Amino acid sequence: MAKVAFIGVGNMGAPMANNLIAAGHELRVFDVVAEAVKAVKGAVACESAAQTVQGAEVVISMLPESRHVESLYLTDAKLLEHIDPSALVLDCSTISPSTSRKVAAAAKAKGIAMLDAPVSGGTNGAVAGTLTFMIGGAAADLARARPFIEVMGKNIFHAGEAGAGQVAKIANNMMLGIAMAGTCEALALGVANGMDPAVLSEIMQKSSGGSWALEKYNPWPGVLEGVPASKNYAGGFGVDLMLKDLGLAAGAAVESRSSITLGETARNLFSLHSKNGHGKLDFSSILNMIKP
Amino acid sequence: MAKVAFIGVGNMGAPMANNLIAAGHELRVFDVVAEAVKAVKGAVACESAAQTVQGAEVVISMLPESRHVESLYLTDAKLLEHIDPSALVLDCSTISPSTSRKVAAAAKAKGIAMLDAPVSGGTNGAVAGTLTFMIGGAAADLARARPFIEVMGKNIFHAGEAGAGQVAKIANNMMLGIAMAGTCEALALGVANGMDPAVLSEIMQKSSGGSWALEKYNPWPGVLEGVPASKNYAGGFGVDLMLKDLGLAAGAAVESRSSITLGETARNLFSLHSKNGHGKLDFSSILNMIKP
Amino acid sequence: MAKVAFIGVGNMGAPMANNLIAAGHELRVFDVVAEAVKAVKGAVACESAAQTVQGAEVVISMLPESRHVESLYLTDAKLLEHIDPSALVLDCSTISPSTSRKVAAAAKAKGIAMLDAPVSGGTNGAVAGTLTFMIGGAAADLARARPFIEVMGKNIFHAGEAGAGQVAKIANNMMLGIAMAGTCEALALGVANGMDPAVLSEIMQKSSGGSWALEKYNPWPGVLEGVPASKNYAGGFGVDLMLKDLGLAAGAAVESRSSITLGETARNLFSLHSKNGHGKLDFSSILNMIKP
Amino acid sequence: MAKVAFIGVGNMGAPMANNLIAAGHELRVFDVVAEAVKAVKGAVACESAAQTVQGAEVVISMLPESRHVESLYLTDAKLLEHIDPSALVLDCSTISPSTSRKVAAAAKAKGIAMLDAPVSGGTNGAVAGTLTFMIGGAAADLARARPFIEVMGKNIFHAGEAGAGQVAKIANNMMLGIAMAGTCEALALGVANGMDPAVLSEIMQKSSGGSWALEKYNPWPGVLEGVPASKNYAGGFGVDLMLKDLGLAAGAAVESRSSITLGETARNLFSLHSKNGHGKLDFSSILNMIKP
Repeated sequence: MAKVAFIGVGNMGAPMANNLIAAGHELRVFDVVAEAVKAVKGAVACESAAQTVQGAEVVISMLPESRHVESLYLTDAKLLEHIDPSALVLDCSTISPSTSRKVAAAAKAKGIAMLDAPVSGGTNGAVAGTLTFMIGGAAADLARARPFIEVMGKNIFHAGEAGAGQVAKIANNMMLGIAMAGTCEALALGVANGMDPAVLSEIMQKSSGGSWALEKYNPWPGVLEGVPASKNYAGGFGVDLMLKDLGLAAGAAVESRSSITLGETARNLFSLHSKNGHGKLDFSSILNMIKP
Repeated sequence: MAKVAFIGVGNMGAPMANNLIAAGHELRVFDVVAEAVKAVKGAVACESAAQTVQGAEVVISMLPESRHVESLYLTDAKLLEHIDPSALVLDCSTISPSTSRKVAAAAKAKGIAMLDAPVSGGTNGAVAGTLTFMIGGAAADLARARPFIEVMGKNIFHAGEAGAGQVAKIANNMMLGIAMAGTCEALALGVANGMDPAVLSEIMQKSSGGSWALEKYNPWPGVLEGVPASKNYAGGFGVDLMLKDLGLAAGAAVESRSSITLGETARNLFSLHSKNGHGKLDFSSILNMIKP
Repeated sequence: MAKVAFIGVGNMGAPMANNLIAAGHELRVFDVVAEAVKAVKGAVACESAAQTVQGAEVVISMLPESRHVESLYLTDAKLLEHIDPSALVLDCSTISPSTSRKVAAAAKAKGIAMLDAPVSGGTNGAVAGTLTFMIGGAAADLARARPFIEVMGKNIFHAGEAGAGQVAKIANNMMLGIAMAGTCEALALGVANGMDPAVLSEIMQKSSGGSWALEKYNPWPGVLEGVPASKNYAGGFGVDLMLKDLGLAAGAAVESRSSITLGETARNLFSLHSKNGHGKLDFSSILNMIKP
Repeated sequence: MAKVAFIGVGNMGAPMANNLIAAGHELRVFDVVAEAVKAVKGAVACESAAQTVQGAEVVISMLPESRHVESLYLTDAKLLEHIDPSALVLDCSTISPSTSRKVAAAAKAKGIAMLDAPVSGGTNGAVAGTLTFMIGGAAADLARARPFIEVMGKNIFHAGEAGAGQVAKIANNMMLGIAMAGTCEALALGVANGMDPAVLSEIMQKSSGGSWALEKYNPWPGVLEGVPASKNYAGGFGVDLMLKDLGLAAGAAVESRSSITLGETARNLFSLHSKNGHGKLDFSSILNMIKP
């Protein structure tokens, strides 16, 4: 069993930390919101990030945005100066690939192995330990990290070098946002022209218009049981989270001079939807903005 | 065996007609391009559309655009005035739903049963008799048509009332165009950020970014064997055909006051790509416009 | 003074007809809404379109959509069969260029001179006789029409051959829709980043971001006096009218294989705004959907 | 006459520095490209940024991107630690508003007055001393800076607090990019439908489709004399510069959760055009991608 430092124990971080504890690891945790650490039972609550990494063999962070990760490792808490070079660092935050690459390079310069390891699966997946991890970094480092990741997740993808975990997640979620909004447009166009959304869904699924969004997450209420659309768009993956990921896609596209015409258009659709006050609903609720 | 009139025996119509002949039906055919009828062996070549329908139990048409269908049945050839009310009419053209509805209503007023029956599957599917049919019209009429359709196709979907076949095809193909262009954007964004397109494709397929376009028709050369992308974008479904279907989607959206922001954006991407001289390539070649 | 037939005396047509009467012309009017003719004082109310054109030297129509114009002149009322070849026909409806061209060609085949003459300026301009006319057709025919047009409008542009009046209006209004939505985006981006909308408006106006939309029709409430934005978006040019013109632009683009990526995106923005229940507000109210 | 430090003497910075020298100021200059300083005659060439600011009353920087400005003032050269608090700092780089605000705040913390002062007008304007300056910062600081700015530019706009200069420039140029691409779409749609681009331009200019882009910078070759479109799109404002500014707009929109659907769509159009190898042409050459 290992000594693990866990920084950022919010809605996602706390259940991930709890799963590590349940697996027998020894945890030291910190969060800028002091109250947050109470959600992790059986961990040593620390008063600073630096405290958590004392003696840590594994350091895990789960933070909201690029600037928090940069602040933690580089500019404010300067955590890389406190981490033992033998430790393995796993940043599970979903942030810009360029920030991931910058922090990983700084870690490498100090001889510290670091992986970017953004997740998908939401708070349910975090609690159940069934998250999907997309990993950027060296294969050997991923091999070391795997036993810890397997406690928190089910699917583990090695995307490539440092930053590739972020790239994979951003590209995947951009496509998801496009497919969801596109599926809403297709279904709404059909319904506005007299079709039954369930019939059209079935035809598209069996033809060439199928996608994960249509098959597993149909946005039209009542077509599929158990999905957010059939539960008033409660739960699931929030509009504002999709908006965040599409914003990361736009940022990565600007930096890499990529063309993502549909991706940025989708970003704006979700932005308009959020502005209307629906940021907390499941992202398939974009149908409400589009349908007749 | 039945007497069948077949009007429009071009790249798609000719092999469809040949399959009906092979199944033992008696065909009379016509095409505005006189030469075209030669591609159908064993049929009676007629000099007008009106001639083909004399004594026909089934009338099938396969024409390029709405205006041709309107011209054939209503305004110029006035075919509805020549068809026996006991005959069944099957229009396999991909045209605007409103034209389909108008012609079907005119047929109904004369007591003629008519179905809109656009197909997908391309010339290969037409030759092999494995087309997908999306049918609009009465269930009882579809039951009568089924034996004939089964000679030409494999999957038959009853989409709904008159025009619904067109709506289903247009909605499906719009989603296909969105998914393909979106997949190209996602893969290109990944590659511009250092990822391997095959690795990213696999991750998206197993995650939430999957779609028919990604899984069955991957646009990145070499990722999937046998698809157009791996054959210099030869064969497959041409850019200009996708552009036509996205144009029908735009038209239907304008008429029904629907919002298809991604659909119309995709239309413009394919339009720009066609303008660059790539109209005859497979539609997955849109990657070339998007990738780094 | 001339004998004028006027078909379609709704919100726009009635004041235009009244101005012709005030100028001394003898009018016969018809509208499918029988009540509508009462808004024109001093005209002979007819019971059919055909009646109005008996003895008419000039025939003017002002109808809502392409299908009404086609129905009037070609398919239902078949008015071209009733108009004297010496008469001059002026269709002031805003419709698709292809319909205008089709009707004009049919008129020409009967030796009847016809102009497409869509207007801008709204009901205020119609009442005041200050409409802008964009004319498609022969210069000689425009010369004959000019005395009548001058009674109804102030600016007269000869756009080109048959249909060009429609094209000019559609292209102009598409650009107006793009400029208005774009201006809203620019101002909203500025305000979300702490700027004063009036200061930003002034800078853009004096720099390269200026446009008619910004200068004469500023969408931010209070920046410009007297415009709809400063009157709760009442009056002006309605969202649904802009949506109609952007729909005509999309239709013309599909027919001519043109790329209007921004134009169709703007169409969808106005469509989303209309769907939210704001179709009757002035089109500059699109700001409400976009602003923080 | 004052002692001025000038950092970044590339295509824009060098002529700006030369104009300050011509006005009698004493300049010390630095550029990371050692050769670059030779373009400034009569200045003291320094070997580091820190050297330039020794004794400087005014510090001016003109750098390509946000990261360079951050590196200069904050993280690498740490110039704020070398500048005398009595000096006035003027950053003329076009960068993200958030970076401008961050650097200005750091300057303020050290008691140093700083303005963001991005310019437009290109190298011609820089040479002629006719640049437009958009200023963010305190009015009193602008008053101190004005005599220096007036040597380099003609129009000076006070946009608001720190960062507002960047916001104004970004918002203005985003609108310019939208108006230019939109104007190209409108003209191309007209031409594809048979209109003369000069006639359509004139109609739009006198109607509601007018804009600076149409009136002063018509993108159709031959319609306006002297503009880049009439000189094979040479000179003017390059596609890649427009792309950079639209990228800054996208970044600012993501950070401020703004919706700029048309702005981001325009960004992608210019990105596709640049990818085709036209990055160095004037930005009005986007017409070539759009026209029939």
